[in-house]
Amino acid sequence: MKINGLKNILEKKNLDFALFFNFDSMECNANMSYFSSYNGLGALIIPKKDMPFLLVPKMELERAKYSKIKHAYALEKKRFFESVYGKLKSKGIKAKRIGIDYNSSTLNFYRNFRKQFKNVKIKDISSDCFRLREIKTKNEKATLKKSCSHASKILENAIKNIKEFNTESEVAAFLEHESKKLGLNMAFKPIVASGNNASMPHYMPKNIKLKKGFCVIDFGVKYKGYCSDISRTIYLGNATKKEKRIYDFMLNTQKQIIENLKIGDCCGAIYDKCIKNLGDCSKYFIHGLGHGIGIEIHESPNITLNSKDSIEENMAFTIEPGIYTPKKFGIRIEDTIFMEKKPLILTKVTKDLLRI
Amino acid sequence: MKINGLKNILEKKNLDFALFFNFDSMECNANMSYFSSYNGLGALIIPKKDMPFLLVPKMELERAKYSKIKHAYALEKKRFFESVYGKLKSKGIKAKRIGIDYNSSTLNFYRNFRKQFKNVKIKDISSDCFRLREIKTKNEKATLKKSCSHASKILENAIKNIKEFNTESEVAAFLEHESKKLGLNMAFKPIVASGNNASMPHYMPKNIKLKKGFCVIDFGVKYKGYCSDISRTIYLGNATKKEKRIYDFMLNTQKQIIENLKIGDCCGAIYDKCIKNLGDCSKYFIHGLGHGIGIEIHESPNITLNSKDSIEENMAFTIEPGIYTPKKFGIRIEDTIFMEKKPLILTKVTKDLLRI
Repeated sequence: MKINGLKNILEKKNLDFALFFNFDSMECNANMSYFSSYNGLGALIIPKKDMPFLLVPKMELERAKYSKIKHAYALEKKRFFESVYGKLKSKGIKAKRIGIDYNSSTLNFYRNFRKQFKNVKIKDISSDCFRLREIKTKNEKATLKKSCSHASKILENAIKNIKEFNTESEVAAFLEHESKKLGLNMAFKPIVASGNNASMPHYMPKNIKLKKGFCVIDFGVKYKGYCSDISRTIYLGNATKKEKRIYDFMLNTQKQIIENLKIGDCCGAIYDKCIKNLGDCSKYFIHGLGHGIGIEIHESPNITLNSKDSIEENMAFTIEPGIYTPKKFGIRIEDTIFMEKKPLILTKVTKDLLRI
Repeated sequence: MKINGLKNILEKKNLDFALFFNFDSMECNANMSYFSSYNGLGALIIPKKDMPFLLVPKMELERAKYSKIKHAYALEKKRFFESVYGKLKSKGIKAKRIGIDYNSSTLNFYRNFRKQFKNVKIKDISSDCFRLREIKTKNEKATLKKSCSHASKILENAIKNIKEFNTESEVAAFLEHESKKLGLNMAFKPIVASGNNASMPHYMPKNIKLKKGFCVIDFGVKYKGYCSDISRTIYLGNATKKEKRIYDFMLNTQKQIIENLKIGDCCGAIYDKCIKNLGDCSKYFIHGLGHGIGIEIHESPNITLNSKDSIEENMAFTIEPGIYTPKKFGIRIEDTIFMEKKPLILTKVTKDLLRI
């Protein structure tokens, strides 16, 4: 079905085929993985009319055969694009207009590609792929649900045991270890930011003693390739009344935004409403309000300033308002939401301020 | 010193500045990280003559101030390249010829870049950066050494405890957990491939019982940003005499290649010699013999077929011959080497066949 969706786009844009590729053995190409379930090196070619196929280094051929794509071949020529060209030719597939994901194609790729494909037109299909991916299927919904349920349980467990940990790294290590034991990958490197470190939204946990004060934990796993994303802010030590008030204010803001989500809402407007709700505090809210989530941790829709995306049924995304006062403290509360007729919160860990 | 090296290249190539950037909050740009120690979102600009500076989203400004680059500014404009353009102008920095890393710059970047920088010449500096990075400084050597020592100890510990683990995932989880507890990141996702899974060099560990037979464990950490890389093959169960012979044959091949490494050696020739040594088995050797290692797990030099790179003093790289028979078994033995006058093996875990 996903491949048919793409084929329709190729048809509409009059493209002969879509070409996805991955040259980095440490990473996978999201679209390649989405359409083929293959995560290795090589190329995925999805012709408008013919069967899709993979072209991979010899060392990956066996792995490619475990993917959803029936036809996988070894790259035979010295140069990658020579192999691609040869295989297209032998299959009689036209190569006049090609769909390329501009988001994952480098200038280096382009230079090498042009050496072989001299008079070919290329068109960007990155937005089309994002659009295909943002509406989730029933299977994807079930997988996201499971991914969020895993992440919630592991995070809950970490918070319950927080007194056992001395350092930020130890909390992060625990989150990862519990995940890995279940065969889950990380959706991203967990953030454990204690004390004034929490004022940096993308702070990376260090091998330092957990500091007193608010502690932001931002965590997610990948289950069968699908990401979850959840942040909770706990308090190490005794929160003052003022701190408790700020936390509750943030929590109410987050809850209200989620409760009010409706199909058809413009994402830019959701963001604006959040800014309005935050009032004077909004100057300390220095990142987007949320992002789509799926095989990648950041997908469409974007819930940010001026975003023209809108909320549709069967989208999955985060809602994560936060405030950060430089060198002092930070608070972020984040859930992964699945949009049915109404918003369904997939991440289930208490949001009451825990003081430990 | 690194920045001065780059400035010399800009001078030689008559480029006004080098522009590095990162739009992916989950990843870092290797060159940006190398020259600035900053790993977040935004741009690093290194002018031929002026002071280098960072341009980052507001949310990253505090983190940027902890980097090695003295001057960091917030992106002020809606569009990224509008901000870059504005800041260059206000600093009076010419923008006629710009050095770009073609390896990490996407076609999407290029399209947006061109909207702002219409009549500017861009030149690829990716190879120049690789060349700068492949010769390590004293500090880098010490850091690599420490990274390899951490990885060796953790791997040794995992092998010692292998009987405690039921599944491939559990072994991988242990490796990661021991690393994370020390505040170390992964250089890559550990590979634990047991039984016939070991026939796939890039197999990812699954939540399945460890199978009898050869088991390849490929693992490395990042210590202060620098990678280590080590593979050992152990045997779960009782190896037959034939299996023991194949293992020893691979081990001797690996040892010989390392012993014979000399400054000035051509990497393609080292690979050829390995193929020759493997004889009939070489058809089962389906990947490169080694790769440079540093802030990235795969750097220059490339020790592969036809490589024109050569081995120089103060390079760090892996030597990792392997054989893989489809659906049957796999063996890989890999060390990280630092080239002094003679090769120094940084990864220190016994290579005798352990039967467990």
